[in-house]
Amino acid sequence: MSKENKDFVKEITKMEDDFAQWYTDVIRKTDLIDYSPVKGFLVLKPYGYALWENIQKFLDGRFKDTGHENVYFPLLIPESLLNKEKEHVEGFAPEVAWVTHGGNEELAERLCIRPTSETIICEMYSKWLKSYRELPYLYNQWASVVRWEKETRPFLRHREFLWQEGHTLHETYEEAQNETLQMLGIYRELSEEFLAIPVITGKKSEKEKFAGAESTYTIEALMHDGKALQSGTSHNLSQHFTKAFDITYLDRNGKLQHPYHTSWGVSTRLIGAVIMAHGDNRGLILPPRLAPIQVVIVPIMQKKAGVLEKANELKNILEAKGIRVKLDDSKNYSPGWKFNEYEMKGVPVRVEIGPRDIQNNVVMVARRDTLEKETYSLDNIDEIVSGLLDTIQVDMFNKAKEEREKKTFTVNSLEELKEKMETSPGFAKMMWCGDKECEDKIKEEMSATIRCIPFEQEDLGDTCPICGKKAKHMIYVAKAY
Amino acid sequence: MSKENKDFVKEITKMEDDFAQWYTDVIRKTDLIDYSPVKGFLVLKPYGYALWENIQKFLDGRFKDTGHENVYFPLLIPESLLNKEKEHVEGFAPEVAWVTHGGNEELAERLCIRPTSETIICEMYSKWLKSYRELPYLYNQWASVVRWEKETRPFLRHREFLWQEGHTLHETYEEAQNETLQMLGIYRELSEEFLAIPVITGKKSEKEKFAGAESTYTIEALMHDGKALQSGTSHNLSQHFTKAFDITYLDRNGKLQHPYHTSWGVSTRLIGAVIMAHGDNRGLILPPRLAPIQVVIVPIMQKKAGVLEKANELKNILEAKGIRVKLDDSKNYSPGWKFNEYEMKGVPVRVEIGPRDIQNNVVMVARRDTLEKETYSLDNIDEIVSGLLDTIQVDMFNKAKEEREKKTFTVNSLEELKEKMETSPGFAKMMWCGDKECEDKIKEEMSATIRCIPFEQEDLGDTCPICGKKAKHMIYVAKAY
Repeated sequence: MSKENKDFVKEITKMEDDFAQWYTDVIRKTDLIDYSPVKGFLVLKPYGYALWENIQKFLDGRFKDTGHENVYFPLLIPESLLNKEKEHVEGFAPEVAWVTHGGNEELAERLCIRPTSETIICEMYSKWLKSYRELPYLYNQWASVVRWEKETRPFLRHREFLWQEGHTLHETYEEAQNETLQMLGIYRELSEEFLAIPVITGKKSEKEKFAGAESTYTIEALMHDGKALQSGTSHNLSQHFTKAFDITYLDRNGKLQHPYHTSWGVSTRLIGAVIMAHGDNRGLILPPRLAPIQVVIVPIMQKKAGVLEKANELKNILEAKGIRVKLDDSKNYSPGWKFNEYEMKGVPVRVEIGPRDIQNNVVMVARRDTLEKETYSLDNIDEIVSGLLDTIQVDMFNKAKEEREKKTFTVNSLEELKEKMETSPGFAKMMWCGDKECEDKIKEEMSATIRCIPFEQEDLGDTCPICGKKAKHMIYVAKAY
Repeated sequence: MSKENKDFVKEITKMEDDFAQWYTDVIRKTDLIDYSPVKGFLVLKPYGYALWENIQKFLDGRFKDTGHENVYFPLLIPESLLNKEKEHVEGFAPEVAWVTHGGNEELAERLCIRPTSETIICEMYSKWLKSYRELPYLYNQWASVVRWEKETRPFLRHREFLWQEGHTLHETYEEAQNETLQMLGIYRELSEEFLAIPVITGKKSEKEKFAGAESTYTIEALMHDGKALQSGTSHNLSQHFTKAFDITYLDRNGKLQHPYHTSWGVSTRLIGAVIMAHGDNRGLILPPRLAPIQVVIVPIMQKKAGVLEKANELKNILEAKGIRVKLDDSKNYSPGWKFNEYEMKGVPVRVEIGPRDIQNNVVMVARRDTLEKETYSLDNIDEIVSGLLDTIQVDMFNKAKEEREKKTFTVNSLEELKEKMETSPGFAKMMWCGDKECEDKIKEEMSATIRCIPFEQEDLGDTCPICGKKAKHMIYVAKAY
């Protein structure tokens, strides 16, 4: 490593020294996001927004495959509508932004900027729905929402964030439940197959569920520092909102019924998960399917005759294979600087090509995830690189899964849980009686929370290790973002 | 026409009787949009949103082809930022929505919901830009904006609407001017080649330009009722904002400079243009490139053996050709009902297939734009339909252009202009001295406005027909939405 390169990497704090600072440094150095003059409102810069665009493209395709259509509902919601569902308003009213004036006029009724759109959407559904023939309603919207959070953090908790929210209506509870789980399955697919982040899927406790939901399901990921990140949720809202908003339809027997209802969402928070589940002390490591640039070509001694021509030829060959390629032929920076820049930015594969390589009909190919370098013939380089991208995608998932497994442990007492959470945080598996008192105790004593009651239940004993009563569920506990 | 069909069409008011009511009826019957509980905030329903998605896809591709990247800037702008550019704040402050409370707290400074994002974007650009090496900045964002309009109208004027806004910085005035015109060119391409709506391109008068711009360029379309619709604008902002926000960089000679600046946008208003430039008394007529459904297949006597199988086979064949196809095999409605439904929804091509057709290896193909029906062999139906869609796209443009030309006339006096605007409104071509007094007179006497000083100037005389002074420009005048 040249001196220049060492200095460069130094600017990122080591994650072992200060994980929070490492996270902030990576975000700042890789130019994903910036703070705006309004606290908690961030700017998504081109590289950060490109990550969101790729997530959108994947999800939007899966939503449409499963019969959903996109719609757009208003940004502003009258206070009276927000107040209609009791639990919902209690959950959200303290953290909404209020519009009180339009132009120079004071409004007769305050309007809140949507913190989520159940209320305005249900109001419209109540106007539209007439007959069972129109069901199911399978709608999604891409939008930004505002929640006036006290503490904010890039990607993880903004006062304004970009997300999608699905809102569906169904004839039966069972259909709504199937939809809820189907969408959770798509979020799992997004996380595991696209972002290469393994997740625990399961149900939230009563305490942790969405304000107004019958049940909330979640995908929970583990970050490098052993903290969990709730990465997507899908809610079976049953008839809570459809009754509050008096949404009715004539069923197959001509009887008036309230439909069953779901909602589900993921947000730009997922980008925070990618940073903290894959990144290292050199910066980002992006899974190939997500990466805006999958391959960067760095020409060596680019002034020599033929180098840039060959580099451009290589770019065309890789692009013809459907690979997202950047050729960095800028003259202002040395190859060494470029190596570091694109390592920091997490570009999965770097291809170096110089006069000697061209003479030997080879290129040097470097993997970002393992930092391994290997020489390949130019003859079938498109196949090689394309195969390598697939390999990296799978390897990154496996590595993250191994890491999660190393940080997952079983605990049999509150003391053990507390000790683990302090010394080597991660996912604690334990039994639970199901009572809120025990759940509160976990939060009070170590600010950890029940992340979920996983679908894959394990039998870890008969009693709740906190109160000694009969255990109902196996749960995952963790400190969380 | 069966009785059932006649009744159906009756629900849309004839445009000759009441154009405004026709417009509202078409929108309501085709389920594009609905009113929300907040005045001027509308819901884009699936069919309406699908039109916007297709416009987005086209434009986003063209933006990226021309080197632009997407970003996302905050929804809320501090009052002090909005106030920084004098003309801008005068133009927008009277029509913004103000956020005064976050949660239960009153804010120290009011925040407005962006009516457009020049101010917040310039504030960030002033933090980011350091050297000429980083220029140009070529950024775009897809977002919703809020303007507290007094009068609102579906698609044409909402208090909240979806749009894109490009914001670029350049080293020289000339580069900024080239960018401004390049993006106007892309809007022209969108309108003429994608939406099949011919437009006049040109420059806005000083009075009509964007608040804070040096010059505003526009594409102006003509609707069936002879009113013009401003369909997209591109602004050369010169250094107005970059000076107000103190955006500087070190130029090639190490000297501190203010960059040159452009912004440009189109919105969901374009959907209003499509309705009013192409629609007829049966409803929408969608150009094939825009249409969410390009071909609807309606099976006849669908209970007969083999009909649905053949219809599905046909669907697959057309989809393999890249055509967006819907097969409507619902049992609740008759073929006659379906014919009308998809005619109303503007689906460019209908294919009817029944037992007799199958026996003869043919289908009946109907064009929405001309209402012509023709029988074609099933043998190369994909080629036929694909070619027909291309033909319809071109024919619709030509028809709209002919109609516009019929409604375009030259006037030589204020009286003539006034008479024309009252008896047969359309685009009036005339000479103009360039003075605001004459421009004001046009507005006062007939609420028409100068739509633009077109790039394609014609010589219609030497004097301004209003004041008799020497003419500077040829202009287009019209009543406008």
